[in-house]
Amino acid sequence: MSPFPFAQNQRGGVGAPGPLMPIKVGILGATGSVGQRFIQLLEGHPWFVVTTVGASDRSVGKRYGSTAWRLSADVPPSVRNLTLVDCKPGAEWDCQVVFSALPSENAGEIEEAFAAAGYKVFSNARNHRDDLDVPLLIPEVNPDHSRVIAAQRAGRGWDEGFIVTNPNCTTIHLVLALKPLHDAFGLKKVLVTSMQAVSGAGYPGVPALDIIDNVVPFIGGEEEKVESEPLKLLGSVSEDESGFVPAPIRISATCTRVAVREAHTESVSVELGRPATLQEVAAALQNFEAEPQRLLLPSAPVRPVILRSEADRPQPLLDRDGEGAMATTVGRLRTCNILDYKFVLTGHNTIRGAAGASILNAELLFTQGWI
Amino acid sequence: MSPFPFAQNQRGGVGAPGPLMPIKVGILGATGSVGQRFIQLLEGHPWFVVTTVGASDRSVGKRYGSTAWRLSADVPPSVRNLTLVDCKPGAEWDCQVVFSALPSENAGEIEEAFAAAGYKVFSNARNHRDDLDVPLLIPEVNPDHSRVIAAQRAGRGWDEGFIVTNPNCTTIHLVLALKPLHDAFGLKKVLVTSMQAVSGAGYPGVPALDIIDNVVPFIGGEEEKVESEPLKLLGSVSEDESGFVPAPIRISATCTRVAVREAHTESVSVELGRPATLQEVAAALQNFEAEPQRLLLPSAPVRPVILRSEADRPQPLLDRDGEGAMATTVGRLRTCNILDYKFVLTGHNTIRGAAGASILNAELLFTQGWI
Amino acid sequence: MSPFPFAQNQRGGVGAPGPLMPIKVGILGATGSVGQRFIQLLEGHPWFVVTTVGASDRSVGKRYGSTAWRLSADVPPSVRNLTLVDCKPGAEWDCQVVFSALPSENAGEIEEAFAAAGYKVFSNARNHRDDLDVPLLIPEVNPDHSRVIAAQRAGRGWDEGFIVTNPNCTTIHLVLALKPLHDAFGLKKVLVTSMQAVSGAGYPGVPALDIIDNVVPFIGGEEEKVESEPLKLLGSVSEDESGFVPAPIRISATCTRVAVREAHTESVSVELGRPATLQEVAAALQNFEAEPQRLLLPSAPVRPVILRSEADRPQPLLDRDGEGAMATTVGRLRTCNILDYKFVLTGHNTIRGAAGASILNAELLFTQGWI
Amino acid sequence: MSPFPFAQNQRGGVGAPGPLMPIKVGILGATGSVGQRFIQLLEGHPWFVVTTVGASDRSVGKRYGSTAWRLSADVPPSVRNLTLVDCKPGAEWDCQVVFSALPSENAGEIEEAFAAAGYKVFSNARNHRDDLDVPLLIPEVNPDHSRVIAAQRAGRGWDEGFIVTNPNCTTIHLVLALKPLHDAFGLKKVLVTSMQAVSGAGYPGVPALDIIDNVVPFIGGEEEKVESEPLKLLGSVSEDESGFVPAPIRISATCTRVAVREAHTESVSVELGRPATLQEVAAALQNFEAEPQRLLLPSAPVRPVILRSEADRPQPLLDRDGEGAMATTVGRLRTCNILDYKFVLTGHNTIRGAAGASILNAELLFTQGWI
Repeated sequence: MSPFPFAQNQRGGVGAPGPLMPIKVGILGATGSVGQRFIQLLEGHPWFVVTTVGASDRSVGKRYGSTAWRLSADVPPSVRNLTLVDCKPGAEWDCQVVFSALPSENAGEIEEAFAAAGYKVFSNARNHRDDLDVPLLIPEVNPDHSRVIAAQRAGRGWDEGFIVTNPNCTTIHLVLALKPLHDAFGLKKVLVTSMQAVSGAGYPGVPALDIIDNVVPFIGGEEEKVESEPLKLLGSVSEDESGFVPAPIRISATCTRVAVREAHTESVSVELGRPATLQEVAAALQNFEAEPQRLLLPSAPVRPVILRSEADRPQPLLDRDGEGAMATTVGRLRTCNILDYKFVLTGHNTIRGAAGASILNAELLFTQGWI
Repeated sequence: MSPFPFAQNQRGGVGAPGPLMPIKVGILGATGSVGQRFIQLLEGHPWFVVTTVGASDRSVGKRYGSTAWRLSADVPPSVRNLTLVDCKPGAEWDCQVVFSALPSENAGEIEEAFAAAGYKVFSNARNHRDDLDVPLLIPEVNPDHSRVIAAQRAGRGWDEGFIVTNPNCTTIHLVLALKPLHDAFGLKKVLVTSMQAVSGAGYPGVPALDIIDNVVPFIGGEEEKVESEPLKLLGSVSEDESGFVPAPIRISATCTRVAVREAHTESVSVELGRPATLQEVAAALQNFEAEPQRLLLPSAPVRPVILRSEADRPQPLLDRDGEGAMATTVGRLRTCNILDYKFVLTGHNTIRGAAGASILNAELLFTQGWI
Repeated sequence: MSPFPFAQNQRGGVGAPGPLMPIKVGILGATGSVGQRFIQLLEGHPWFVVTTVGASDRSVGKRYGSTAWRLSADVPPSVRNLTLVDCKPGAEWDCQVVFSALPSENAGEIEEAFAAAGYKVFSNARNHRDDLDVPLLIPEVNPDHSRVIAAQRAGRGWDEGFIVTNPNCTTIHLVLALKPLHDAFGLKKVLVTSMQAVSGAGYPGVPALDIIDNVVPFIGGEEEKVESEPLKLLGSVSEDESGFVPAPIRISATCTRVAVREAHTESVSVELGRPATLQEVAAALQNFEAEPQRLLLPSAPVRPVILRSEADRPQPLLDRDGEGAMATTVGRLRTCNILDYKFVLTGHNTIRGAAGASILNAELLFTQGWI
Repeated sequence: MSPFPFAQNQRGGVGAPGPLMPIKVGILGATGSVGQRFIQLLEGHPWFVVTTVGASDRSVGKRYGSTAWRLSADVPPSVRNLTLVDCKPGAEWDCQVVFSALPSENAGEIEEAFAAAGYKVFSNARNHRDDLDVPLLIPEVNPDHSRVIAAQRAGRGWDEGFIVTNPNCTTIHLVLALKPLHDAFGLKKVLVTSMQAVSGAGYPGVPALDIIDNVVPFIGGEEEKVESEPLKLLGSVSEDESGFVPAPIRISATCTRVAVREAHTESVSVELGRPATLQEVAAALQNFEAEPQRLLLPSAPVRPVILRSEADRPQPLLDRDGEGAMATTVGRLRTCNILDYKFVLTGHNTIRGAAGASILNAELLFTQGWI
């Protein structure tokens, strides 16, 4: 699994031009599930270098390498000796960019404090996703939404800092599959049932007693996000660039938890804006290429959407790691007796669905000149 | 878990009147997953007694107690010493009723041979479900469909024997929840995504390597059954009683396999024939009572549909065994942004969804005088 | 699963004579994993009736039926309307016997307070297990150890109350299998590796992320208990009846956690005190019968140890529920290249290994006149 | 996960000198679980190139890329267009080395036919492991055992071909941990209980119904292998170089199956030949370096044995992929109340325990001049 397909090409001269000096980044909530993914994905990143790791009070002062690492045998060497610091802007935060893996209980205020202090904040938390002046961004879907940052700074009196958010993990993979359909045919209705991985609940998260030999058909707040976030993502920047106009799509979601470690699976039915053949729909998905692919961003998947034709794919186990775990895999594309077409998709929830999403957003904004 | 709630009442005088002498029954395919459930459920049955167990060639001649029993510590005592015989009608089949747990590769012909030889066949196999003259029966849903048996006998030249089938496991639980809605409001569209237990594939069935930490979004032939069988079940007997008129409902199904041992879970959206409030829909589900409950059949659940109000129910682990594992549990009832209402249901797939379904069918037909 | 095999016989006149009036019992820690097992096992108990349920501060005042029940669809009807009270002796604790499912953080003091206030305390917590004057009791193993209660009362100045403990779940099943060997041949060395169920850690307990597709080779404090508790259990009451003389046995334990819901499995090698043939060892296990079986106590398994001869048994899934989940199942008995014999055992950890153990202790002490 | 740590160094000039031209290799049984691991590990191998893939009759003639690949999203590109051929020596087998992933039902004869035809056969099957003239080889343990190949060729009349085997997956990891102890202190007794992954049984292998929420305490033939293979591995070549003298060690094994996808875990107690402190034992494990590390073989782990000090390690999930999944991770080292010391080890069963073991053997034999 190489998370930087284009960075490798770059050695041959084809990747996006990076910064002259590595950009220093910090991580808010660096010891949690998503925080550890940030650390893992930034290890060896061609543009960014982790200089600061923040945690909650009871971990402050510890070596990062002494905390419980749950992704593989060992903490990556480059961060092992960093000391965990308080999640407050200050001299210890010797960096320009901050990735936030904070829980929603305290993400809102902390992220604002950092943005006000001049940091560029890329947040995985839900707190600011619905703010009128905060971009909810997927580089393949709505790269131009970053234009609203100007209004955000003006309105909030921030000079250099800003907040950019990425969507909920279930939303990201859904919208990656919907975007090419929306572009090609328009999109009117989406009905989705998700089967989500336990890692989505963080650590300790889901008790083993709740999920071994079981399905839990409810995830608090999840369906609301899946029903609303895509409208902002597939919408447009308002004329005065002060906010967003949501797309006129209706979505109905049922979100469930299954005994899978990583990768959410979604059963999706869609109604399109204009008639399209199965071949046209397949072609739209298969040929989808977008800004990060054109820009050759380091963490961009070569193919953001992979369409498979086998009868029994996608499967979270087999398809979650494809393209550096940054792609969405779609399969079982066929007509639906109720809406127009239906399919199943799978995607890695803590990489493309969380930490990787924030990092790709930062790569985009660097290329756009915001960093 | 008492599978005979009404039989217990019966001691107090309120259950359905049973036969004067126990009815002898045989089991075709007695060593498979569903075959073992037949054995388990018929242990201590107030009306039926197992006299004959049939298996494939390589097991014929063995003691039933010497085969690999996978449901609990030990084979029930009453069948331990029965000898496995060939699945061919003959003197060894000293019984009136035959339950079929055969795989579809050979169920079709064997069941016909038994019916032709005068046995009353209750089949769990798919082979005859679509036959125009064979009832596809759920006692709570279409108890009158048994009337077509007369035409079946006439058409096939069968004297005493007949074939009655029960639906696919996923269909049964879906239709148990749809029936009260269809009766009360009419039903136009149904969109369902299932998360099915591994026991549904029999034994050895699903390899562990395919399902630990995974979801398999495909089950061969399953979606076709779920999209067609409910139409026959919710349809009506044709005027000349020679067959069935399907209900004009459109269904779209996506069937997936998850790491659950027993009980299928289904995420369902429905469009009704006429407007109804959430309260009316809830009341229809909650108050559903049907023929087996009126007749007090021994294997009938007291409530065929259990409606739960907790945010995170139903769950296969918690809800599969309710009412002798013969009920369907519905929860998360709420409005749907695309169709009218949506809900999640769970039900035991090898009891209510298979062996228990056949046994309840036999109980109904005894009460109707067909046995 | 009937937890009262002898109580059923009792209707025919053969069970142990019970109390004239049901004995009122309370449960300390009634909402936890083991607490729920107490509730489940006491539902319909022929001797005991639950009158009081105690919980921690934040649940006090709630209806028991409104707390999250995780064992099956619904809270048993008889306790649904009990109100949770504080774990402090007082008028609300209108009962004679108290079962403790408290966590060890606060079990010690609370249990002492109840004993001092005159309650007969049967504890599942580890706090008092090693106390010199507190019996650590398995009715099949050391029923006479209750004699030390007199010294306990005298030494602590308690009048009517006392504390009796049951061992750790892993110890109980191990010692049930060791006891017949110790009686017949003497026991010198025991080497055991356990594979323990997640329910042993309570709720929420083991995170799903720690155990799906994994084994955790460590359980805090468990090995120490398994290495020491059997010595007290297989030891004897001291001559002056003030305490216990441990058995001179050496035990080495490795305890691991596996992805099983209920029932611990243990791989055991033993060195005996005198030579014995495989047949003699098998006979000792198979014919083991002890005080609870002779007394026909309501919760006693008919066979405390079940010896199976199949190559692939015991298995937690198949063998945990045998004999009301109160038996230990042993299999794979064979010679060991290092010690004398080896075998594998399985037993239900929250029934026989916890709540059921305490209840059987209370039944024994009633029969002995201590209640 | 880079399976070739030394090959990378090699670019810097420090790896073992490889062949001038890539050595052509074929794979017997290329579509099974271990066969797929061979394909995966040989993708990009610095010395070997896969030219031929063999399978059973019903797959012969198919494209390799059209068979069901179960390790990740897609079959590695370099073998996608190879055509599956019969497992018979002949023109289609245009290679010098043959890796065998055949099942034991037919591995014996096929491997002999290939060796007789001049192929160098590296077998993962058990058939020839006990042959007096066939090396059972782990490069870190007994690299000199290859000397017996001369006698093998002489005795069997083989000219260029030979058979070299690698041990059973459970044995390999056990012996990697035992070897440094045997070298430093002598080894007298070993008592081991394994908790093995489902991938060890191949595909389809273990049914999901047998292992979800369960432990199966038996694996046919496994304990015999674990009790005997280490004696040959830790033994020596006989004086006349015609065979082997087993080491005088006694081993007792219990092998169980748990719900883990990959990596076996083993709980081990050992009695040493001479007294040693815990520090000495830890140092022996930690400092273990052997022939493949000295030779800088491409697939060799930098550290063949990794000793961890955390209380709850090793864990199959976290430790299986370390060092290209070619290392054995040991933890929980402590004194044993019965033998001298005990510990827990984990290692990848289909990489280091199977395909990777054969490949490392081939690398060693190339360096030794046998290829």
